[in-house]
Amino acid sequence: MNRYVALEGIEGAGKTSVSAALALRLEEAGHEVIRVREPGGTAVGEGLRQLLLDGPPVTPWAEALMFAAARSQLVTEVIRPALDRGAWVLSDRSVYSSLAYQGAGRRLGMDSVRRINRPGLAGTWPEVVVLLTVSPQQGLARQARPDRIGSQGLQFQRAVAEGFARLAGEEPERFVVIDGGRPMEQVVAAAWDALEARA
Amino acid sequence: MNRYVALEGIEGAGKTSVSAALALRLEEAGHEVIRVREPGGTAVGEGLRQLLLDGPPVTPWAEALMFAAARSQLVTEVIRPALDRGAWVLSDRSVYSSLAYQGAGRRLGMDSVRRINRPGLAGTWPEVVVLLTVSPQQGLARQARPDRIGSQGLQFQRAVAEGFARLAGEEPERFVVIDGGRPMEQVVAAAWDALEARA
Repeated sequence: MNRYVALEGIEGAGKTSVSAALALRLEEAGHEVIRVREPGGTAVGEGLRQLLLDGPPVTPWAEALMFAAARSQLVTEVIRPALDRGAWVLSDRSVYSSLAYQGAGRRLGMDSVRRINRPGLAGTWPEVVVLLTVSPQQGLARQARPDRIGSQGLQFQRAVAEGFARLAGEEPERFVVIDGGRPMEQVVAAAWDALEARA
Repeated sequence: MNRYVALEGIEGAGKTSVSAALALRLEEAGHEVIRVREPGGTAVGEGLRQLLLDGPPVTPWAEALMFAAARSQLVTEVIRPALDRGAWVLSDRSVYSSLAYQGAGRRLGMDSVRRINRPGLAGTWPEVVVLLTVSPQQGLARQARPDRIGSQGLQFQRAVAEGFARLAGEEPERFVVIDGGRPMEQVVAAAWDALEARA
């Protein structure tokens, strides 16, 4: 249990680096580890990723529904089978990104976004959410090449960060909040301790 | 009012031909007419159409969410503005196709599919649904080149046809049910009468 771990946070929070370091440690401890990213990780999901991040204009609701579609496919095709055979799943983003980005950032409402996501996930929901916090300024500065959503500007990033903070407050048993501005080895150590404590 | 008209029915029911004939008559009567098809009709919608009809495997929920996304974009970008300026909209398929295909055909449940569609449509819902009925055998025989969903076989088409029949029974004020097996000019005349009666 508690093997479905989502790395969350705004752009530039360090999710990918922390996920890679955690995967190494878990593998050294003898576990099978699957790393996935959202949106993506399946054939149709990568098609949706391209449409979402580099494609034509998308309305907020269409965006939320496309993320939910990619996620449902990923959960059914990859994540659920991996969990069922005892593997760990480290996911770069999850349904909580949709709640923060489309629910809070795009102002669709976190409850409404939760409702369109729930049926397609059939109960497969991140068990541990490692939320890496950085200031929106610092996060934007770290972005190599902003995509369509990453280039929405400082005010949008701030609304997303506030959404994440609200979610962490609502579900303290699920969230581990770590200051992503600290040196990487300290961030990884804190995340590792949290996983061990919940394993 | 009653200018958002959806043509519905299983594959091969004659939706496109009837839509074209109705558009001609409406234009002859001096109206602006927009013809759209689902999924599609916008840049992102055509991308989704390609993924849905000729792309990689898609789970039932991912499929339902992708149709809902394409529809939300189409309603926001094309249908709502057209209705607001007084145009007629003839749509080859609509949210009722999702209720019949994903709700009944894929067995996701019509209410669940309705729920994921509703927020993205913001009240823009087909006002008249012209349901063309043909037997599943006849419909399949008429298909020029079946796509991924059109090639699901006879039992699937039968479940979809039953879904449409149930919807027509639940909303008799919105549905006009026409035997699509009759000669085309009779089908068009019956559809035209129904639009005039509701205009």
